[in-house]
Amino acid sequence: MGETADAVPDFDKGGGMLPAIAQDADDGAVLMMAYMNAEAYAETLSTGRAVYFSRSRNKLWRKGEESGNVQKVVGVFLDCDRDTILLKVEQIGGAACHEGYRSCFFRQVTPEGLRVVGDRVFDPDDVYGKK
Amino acid sequence: MGETADAVPDFDKGGGMLPAIAQDADDGAVLMMAYMNAEAYAETLSTGRAVYFSRSRNKLWRKGEESGNVQKVVGVFLDCDRDTILLKVEQIGGAACHEGYRSCFFRQVTPEGLRVVGDRVFDPDDVYGKK
Repeated sequence: MGETADAVPDFDKGGGMLPAIAQDADDGAVLMMAYMNAEAYAETLSTGRAVYFSRSRNKLWRKGEESGNVQKVVGVFLDCDRDTILLKVEQIGGAACHEGYRSCFFRQVTPEGLRVVGDRVFDPDDVYGKK
Repeated sequence: MGETADAVPDFDKGGGMLPAIAQDADDGAVLMMAYMNAEAYAETLSTGRAVYFSRSRNKLWRKGEESGNVQKVVGVFLDCDRDTILLKVEQIGGAACHEGYRSCFFRQVTPEGLRVVGDRVFDPDDVYGKK
């Protein structure tokens, strides 16, 4: 027990996976949220690039391996319960979202419905190819 | 379907609950992450104060109802998959964390273990009473 056990995320609490928030290290914008398992977390720390666990593809997701938009990790933080991870990152390419927006949170809830408030940095068709 | 269905979080995707990130509306600090169900989300929108669903207590958690540290909601955003909610808030009392820190993410992961980097705003014993 002691220092070692307290210094790592409590992956058991999340059934092996915990939410990880990526925040722009420069201006604090929240870019995205994804999940990490212990392997993704360890690889993130050892490589200095954000690695998540894709629940839909059921495998490690090295962010940017297809688009080139990797996230260089500037700092890693744990919350009080050690069940959420916060990454401060430098987002290469300027866009974290697969839809081409800087942040995945590019839509604001308004009484009239969702309003796009984010800037589109790239066209997904150009990056991932036409479907 | 159309506008109405697309304008709300996809709570079914998270088994009835979705993660909600609270971010300081002024300087962008990520304060905490908790969960919302549809009822918590609806009450958040109607009251303009953050309401979460406590998984440990299995009931609505009106943030600040005990400590007084409510979160006034300035803006609500959905991510591209509509399975994560981002709140921009004004944190009354200056601290979101029940341990008295401004942000729950007050510890940074370092090669030597966790390092406290956040400022403590209050002593939990004073707010919640000695255990």
